[in-house]
Amino acid sequence: MSERRDRALAAAAGKPLLSAHIATVTWLTGLVTDIEVGPSPFSAPPLVVLDPDGSITAIVSEDEAPGLAPGIETASFPGFAVEDVDRASLAAGAALEILGGARELAVELDSLPGDLALALAGRGVALTDVGKRLRAARAVKDPDEIDALRAATAIADVGQAAAREAAQAGATELTAWASVRSAMESAAGSRIPVLADLVSGERTAEVGGPPTGRTLEADDLLLVDLVPRPGAYWADSCATLAVGAPADAARRAHAAALAALEQAVDLCRPGARAADVDARARETMEEAGGSYPHHTGHGIGVTFHEEPRIIPGSDRILEEGMVVALEPGTYGDGFGVRVEQVVLVTAAGPEILSGHELSL
Amino acid sequence: MSERRDRALAAAAGKPLLSAHIATVTWLTGLVTDIEVGPSPFSAPPLVVLDPDGSITAIVSEDEAPGLAPGIETASFPGFAVEDVDRASLAAGAALEILGGARELAVELDSLPGDLALALAGRGVALTDVGKRLRAARAVKDPDEIDALRAATAIADVGQAAAREAAQAGATELTAWASVRSAMESAAGSRIPVLADLVSGERTAEVGGPPTGRTLEADDLLLVDLVPRPGAYWADSCATLAVGAPADAARRAHAAALAALEQAVDLCRPGARAADVDARARETMEEAGGSYPHHTGHGIGVTFHEEPRIIPGSDRILEEGMVVALEPGTYGDGFGVRVEQVVLVTAAGPEILSGHELSL
Repeated sequence: MSERRDRALAAAAGKPLLSAHIATVTWLTGLVTDIEVGPSPFSAPPLVVLDPDGSITAIVSEDEAPGLAPGIETASFPGFAVEDVDRASLAAGAALEILGGARELAVELDSLPGDLALALAGRGVALTDVGKRLRAARAVKDPDEIDALRAATAIADVGQAAAREAAQAGATELTAWASVRSAMESAAGSRIPVLADLVSGERTAEVGGPPTGRTLEADDLLLVDLVPRPGAYWADSCATLAVGAPADAARRAHAAALAALEQAVDLCRPGARAADVDARARETMEEAGGSYPHHTGHGIGVTFHEEPRIIPGSDRILEEGMVVALEPGTYGDGFGVRVEQVVLVTAAGPEILSGHELSL
Repeated sequence: MSERRDRALAAAAGKPLLSAHIATVTWLTGLVTDIEVGPSPFSAPPLVVLDPDGSITAIVSEDEAPGLAPGIETASFPGFAVEDVDRASLAAGAALEILGGARELAVELDSLPGDLALALAGRGVALTDVGKRLRAARAVKDPDEIDALRAATAIADVGQAAAREAAQAGATELTAWASVRSAMESAAGSRIPVLADLVSGERTAEVGGPPTGRTLEADDLLLVDLVPRPGAYWADSCATLAVGAPADAARRAHAAALAALEQAVDLCRPGARAADVDARARETMEEAGGSYPHHTGHGIGVTFHEEPRIIPGSDRILEEGMVVALEPGTYGDGFGVRVEQVVLVTAAGPEILSGHELSL
């Protein structure tokens, strides 16, 4: 915890930090919020206060407090209750009390609740937005974060293996999806949020999308991009599978995507410029006649798409401890393919965390 | 749409309404947001503006705009993009432009983005919080909302039927859960968010909880509370099943819960006081030696727990068009049971929307 706390303290530049950004809250407190069904009527958005002395206080419901990391101070408001309770107001009041007479605060303004922002302004507190600095600070991972990302990636691997078993003519995208999700949840031992593309046939040309009732056919490709969050950290992975024997054009496109992925992975070393990684991967794909309308890659952590983004023109420099998902592909002419691995940037070079099968 | 728009206009009392509360946005614009994986890096919280002339403008990403109801005006910001985009800032800017020179606004302060709240305050705009009035206004449903709630409840019925099939000794809670969810998603034709209690054995005494890797045994009870959202509207349903032959104590508790449910349903008529419905259901349970530490019921709509809450001491009066989930149960001594149905309050009396089997 201490390394990222130090980075957060640096981002706040000597001021107390107050944030309701769920990524910042999770990053600093370990809180894993229930996100699968949207806002809970028995909670309010959690808040975190980082004092310049390094102490961290989470303002959460009583039901969520047990999930905080050791050493996190807690101010809580009622969770599930029979009575009517204004939890947002109690949370804002707790924050104001903890912040006491602070005259300056570092905040993330666009996710700060409006009532709290106005109350602080009404007290004459000067608010400095440090959202961008915090997003940059989250890009380099601590050892415990890397462990969590490895564990999450292992769950994505389980899902990819299940997708290979489920990719049978006659299954629907939705029944295949159910098998994939069930395998990941059984491996994790709990329900887990999962973002996913699961598209078959001509819809693979559309880059991605959710599973539908479409029935898989023998000459289909199936594109499976799995982004599970078994704990506080997300994984990411993509493979493209042929339900039967793949056509030659698909084989060629897939080989080109693999070459672009290998190229991108190899460039993920300390000191590399994001734009260069992006450009080389795109060039490899374009030399083979393919192209993709999306980023080449992105960081993952307590969010599933974060710094460093691997995009054209970016001067972001890769550093040791960054964890990047790389996902070149090619789309069009009735089908698409994409392959993706997660890579840890180390002093010794790229370490591939993903263990799933990439073959067509 | 016009009836709820009229209720929202009344809540705003002649002022323009600006809200970022996801329930208000969905209620007024029909937007079904992707909630299963938390905030999207390619969106920002959607906003809605209701002008006193009745026109409604949604401020959403370009990817979300196609999901708005007919007749909703749209101001959009970029969705998925390769480039870095500050979507929250673009959304706030669009709202300020739409609101123009308004000097007074009705808002929901605790969910209004902090940057937008401060910008409005900086312009000298007077902000009146109408969150409570809007929550009350959402309690009575329009005919199209009742249709959506019926359709959602039919999906919950599918899930309950699947739970009965999956409740076999040797299955785990998680594999049973996967069958239940898969059946609902195949019936809906898409992935859907689902809140659920799925607990077996002694854990049924704990009221609820998510499925785990625990294996079902022949003398277990299985408590299944399913809350799916196949569109913009949620359903809710609960049944308690015996994996094998139920014990006498479980049979008695279950019969008492059914009697309390029947009692509560019968009282859901226009003019009934929420506290009276609550008290009678609790009395029925207590006369049989049982009790429950939670509400007797709650409204459902664009959220899964809303007005009217059926709780002790509440003076809320039931009205025609309210849709209420009623869920008495009893817990303790190593097991718990709960049963739940959704009821529409009509002039002719309660209409049960739920169609699932309630037997043990």
